[in-house]
Amino acid sequence: MKEISGYIEEGAMAFLKREYKVLSVFIVVVFFVLGITIQWKTAFCFIIGSIFSILAGYFGMRVATKANVRTANAARKSQNCALEIAFSGGAVMGMCVVGLGLFGIGVLYIIFGSADIITGFGLGASSIALFARVGGGIYTKAADVGADLVGKVESGIPEDDPRNPAVIADNVGDNVGDVAGMGADLFESYVGSIISTLTLGAALYGDFKGIVFPFLLASIGVISSIIGSLFVKGDENSNPQKALKNGTYVSSVIILIASSILSKYMFNNFKAFWAISVGLLAGVIIGQLTEMYTSADYRHVKKIAHQSQTGPATTIISGIAIGMYSSVLPIVFIVFAILIAFFCMNGATNVLMGLYGISLAALGMLSTTGMTVAVDAYGPIADNAGGIAEMSGLPKEVRTITDRLDSVGNTTAAIGKGFAIGSAALTALSLFASYSHAVGLKTIDLLDPITLSGVLLGGVLPFFFGALSMEAVGKAANKMIEEVRRQFKENPDIMTGKSKPDYKNCVDISTAAALKEMIVPGVLAVVVPVLVGLLLGAAALGGLIAGAVVSGVLLAIFMANSGGAWDNAKKFIETGEHGGKGSYAHKASVVGDTVGDPFKDTAGPSMNILIKLMTIVALVFAPLFKVFGGVIIGLIK
Amino acid sequence: MKEISGYIEEGAMAFLKREYKVLSVFIVVVFFVLGITIQWKTAFCFIIGSIFSILAGYFGMRVATKANVRTANAARKSQNCALEIAFSGGAVMGMCVVGLGLFGIGVLYIIFGSADIITGFGLGASSIALFARVGGGIYTKAADVGADLVGKVESGIPEDDPRNPAVIADNVGDNVGDVAGMGADLFESYVGSIISTLTLGAALYGDFKGIVFPFLLASIGVISSIIGSLFVKGDENSNPQKALKNGTYVSSVIILIASSILSKYMFNNFKAFWAISVGLLAGVIIGQLTEMYTSADYRHVKKIAHQSQTGPATTIISGIAIGMYSSVLPIVFIVFAILIAFFCMNGATNVLMGLYGISLAALGMLSTTGMTVAVDAYGPIADNAGGIAEMSGLPKEVRTITDRLDSVGNTTAAIGKGFAIGSAALTALSLFASYSHAVGLKTIDLLDPITLSGVLLGGVLPFFFGALSMEAVGKAANKMIEEVRRQFKENPDIMTGKSKPDYKNCVDISTAAALKEMIVPGVLAVVVPVLVGLLLGAAALGGLIAGAVVSGVLLAIFMANSGGAWDNAKKFIETGEHGGKGSYAHKASVVGDTVGDPFKDTAGPSMNILIKLMTIVALVFAPLFKVFGGVIIGLIK
Repeated sequence: MKEISGYIEEGAMAFLKREYKVLSVFIVVVFFVLGITIQWKTAFCFIIGSIFSILAGYFGMRVATKANVRTANAARKSQNCALEIAFSGGAVMGMCVVGLGLFGIGVLYIIFGSADIITGFGLGASSIALFARVGGGIYTKAADVGADLVGKVESGIPEDDPRNPAVIADNVGDNVGDVAGMGADLFESYVGSIISTLTLGAALYGDFKGIVFPFLLASIGVISSIIGSLFVKGDENSNPQKALKNGTYVSSVIILIASSILSKYMFNNFKAFWAISVGLLAGVIIGQLTEMYTSADYRHVKKIAHQSQTGPATTIISGIAIGMYSSVLPIVFIVFAILIAFFCMNGATNVLMGLYGISLAALGMLSTTGMTVAVDAYGPIADNAGGIAEMSGLPKEVRTITDRLDSVGNTTAAIGKGFAIGSAALTALSLFASYSHAVGLKTIDLLDPITLSGVLLGGVLPFFFGALSMEAVGKAANKMIEEVRRQFKENPDIMTGKSKPDYKNCVDISTAAALKEMIVPGVLAVVVPVLVGLLLGAAALGGLIAGAVVSGVLLAIFMANSGGAWDNAKKFIETGEHGGKGSYAHKASVVGDTVGDPFKDTAGPSMNILIKLMTIVALVFAPLFKVFGGVIIGLIK
Repeated sequence: MKEISGYIEEGAMAFLKREYKVLSVFIVVVFFVLGITIQWKTAFCFIIGSIFSILAGYFGMRVATKANVRTANAARKSQNCALEIAFSGGAVMGMCVVGLGLFGIGVLYIIFGSADIITGFGLGASSIALFARVGGGIYTKAADVGADLVGKVESGIPEDDPRNPAVIADNVGDNVGDVAGMGADLFESYVGSIISTLTLGAALYGDFKGIVFPFLLASIGVISSIIGSLFVKGDENSNPQKALKNGTYVSSVIILIASSILSKYMFNNFKAFWAISVGLLAGVIIGQLTEMYTSADYRHVKKIAHQSQTGPATTIISGIAIGMYSSVLPIVFIVFAILIAFFCMNGATNVLMGLYGISLAALGMLSTTGMTVAVDAYGPIADNAGGIAEMSGLPKEVRTITDRLDSVGNTTAAIGKGFAIGSAALTALSLFASYSHAVGLKTIDLLDPITLSGVLLGGVLPFFFGALSMEAVGKAANKMIEEVRRQFKENPDIMTGKSKPDYKNCVDISTAAALKEMIVPGVLAVVVPVLVGLLLGAAALGGLIAGAVVSGVLLAIFMANSGGAWDNAKKFIETGEHGGKGSYAHKASVVGDTVGDPFKDTAGPSMNILIKLMTIVALVFAPLFKVFGGVIIGLIK
């Protein structure tokens, strides 16, 4: 067990180290660009934000790669023991994310005393998050697809079999994609929502109320997450899902009570409380909707499984249709949250105040981030524990327990993705409000063809980005397939178990491919908003962001939910429905699952960060566009 | 031959008749709603628009179902004969579309003398077009998938085999989907672009110049299409594609020359000429881009074919990635066209004039509609001719000729789809400008959360619509599959050729299913904009339209091109690449093609009409929103 978890830890750390090397070049370049074009204080905050984002991912991975083997060991004793250890691993990561975010913003605010400068911190957090999500997403899916196609399909060995050379890379992928990538994603949303509340709050209420309120709220959020995590306890026969939900509900209730007191005490009314609650509630509802569309307990996944009986084509068509459907209700609830938050803060008479309400809703949704990350990180820990149990030949009962924990992890992961998308939308919209304020735009007029052009260009970016990242997975997976085939061919002793496969080579291939393929989409997300702002002006950039948020959120929901639904349709069939494992329906559902992999773990979740990153790039470079914006349009005029 | 073409004609006419019955209910309801809420003159124009749209589809179908058998007969003589007959069938349809459009708008303008009232004509054209596209799209794909899955895959009989009970329904589908549906689509774009130019032109230049200019331009377009169609001639060994392109180029050049003279003569400058040319050019470029992404002559389709070697999952992933990629450049060229048209008409100093420029660009793009429809309708005629040749057991050489003509038809269909999408985007945007003018909005501010909510809700509509229409195809295809299976089972003589299958039952099933499933999406597209306008107000409705245009155009390009690329990747493999017919790669490519069917022929093309229809609904009901708009927002405030 120790040996195998050692491999995983080693591979994960090797990936992070090489990723950080690549990122350091990016960080240094952006540092100088920021320092020269904006100001050096912002550039300094950018560096700190980048480092903190890296630290959040690093600590999370360290804990996760230790917790997995301990969870496997605890599963020998009891399900509850294993649940508690897996969850406490996630909880450490969750506290790291919120602790680092709050600490970083707080200290930098004390040093610089200006909300504008701290936007650099957000930019650092966002850009590292994008690379971590995209790189991690490519890594994990390349390894997964490679391990599955050659190992399971071609050679007929079971999942997580130690004879599969790509098996370690696959398990490393769970860590770098689902732990480090997801942690960086939520770290960024968390930081972004605080920053947008700060910038708008400072403009509205001055330094005291405007700054203290979000900090107090976020701190209460940390405490509520800690208390909530104490409630994650189950007995031997209860569903682990229930224990995890208990924790989330407890911390939500604490936030609600505390924010009502805080709102009354600081503003002498309950308006801020309503805005915060509506955000929190929307987050919970979107999470539940995600579960409804991606869990086999509901009719949608069952329908995909049913359609699998007529082959892979109908599986794909029904999965895509359900993914598209699933984007409708979350958008409706996001719209509700926006409108209620805006109007309950008197947006009708004071627009800025209304926009502040939207950023409070985002903050409310993200106030339980500590808990969300903990629940989310628990999944890959349980998954890895199962892998370790299988590879080290632990008794079957152990694997049964880890499988149970893992299957809950799939649902929590889907809910976490829904939550990440919802919070990304609200955060991006509140940062959008901050941007327009910073750049001095009173209106961003859709009737102006320049704005409209921005909206069209912004809308196409997530499609371009999605195409790039899906192709990257394809390329990386192809390399992995070739390597696994090569190892099986050159060393026939691997299949008989006499000789160990070369795990390291597979890890290296995934690492190199992921790092190479993450660069273009990552740089694109930073460069395009700056170029559009400079060439077409601040209004076009506003349009670009709005367009990107709309199509990005829609694609993110569609792709994440299609992918999740295909995955669970396959698992549903594997329980014996429609002929069970090996049937025609099962083969069709495996096709759906494979298509869904890059959907739900690479392209889909990257959209969240893309839209937040573009918005924060716009916000940070706002002073530049104020002066130099719209060169081309100026020439035409 | 006559017997079989008789079945097709009978089936197609039966479908149209039943469709018109359903539509007449809708038309009567909307007539009274319009009459009571807006004015009876608009309601009258609506009726005329609906009838003319129906006539355009009806004439087209009549000609197409006669031309197919003649083409098959002509193919016994020579390729050139067959080409000319197939094309002249399409040309009649093309002239019907533009003739009816121009005649209808012209007469109604002479009667009522107001551009606002004529918007009712556009609403009639659009709503019938949506039902025709969606209904036709569901019909054709249900029949196609049903015929393929049971006939080709399960029973192993070739395409267009007369023993297949669904074969007539399949051929009827080509007519109702690709001829009637596509004709109604372009009729609507054509009418929409003229109406938006009229409303903006009348506001700018008063009744003479503002009205006469677009009419003159459109009339020249008709003449240029007639002249262009005379140039569609090839010799025996030349590629029919070249002949078709010649015709398009000739009519484009005529338009350019005529519009430069007209622009100079009427406005004493070349500004209108530039706006028109930029639209025309953008249309041609978008068509070419579509060819690049969907034709096997280029690397993208070859890549999908290559990926088919690793199975259906990689086929699907690469096809989706290419579809998403393919949306980038068309959007960039649409943006270019918008900006150039806007600024060359002095949009920087006079916004309304700039917006007029955009509507001129749309008109320019659509000035060759007659030719575009002719080229587009040629495809299904050639396809049907092939089916008739196969079913009536004509010599193999005949089928070779019709196959050659048909394969060109696939490319022209893809180009036509690209053109339809590009023109839909420009038309919708220029109608959007007319809407804002009609409802009296000086700005539609993205910073207003109500507008932003509209954008989000608008963005999700095409996803919802796409999901609905794809599910409808699935349901209808399932019914068809069951029926074909039943016939084979109950009457084994069908397979031996001793007894004829019951074609009529299959036609009935497709008809009933298509009509049933088209109602919800069709009504949705009309009701949602009205509801949003009434409840959230005119600005939210403006946002809704902008959001729907952006995500609708993106989804339309993505889905149409993914579908086209999969189709041609399959055909590419069938030429013997990667193992040819029956190979593993071929099976994977068939999955891609089947997924692509509802993408490219149902969901994708419906998006065009959806966005135009929603915009014109907003324009027609603008007076209502001016008075009663935003009930809910009013209550909140």
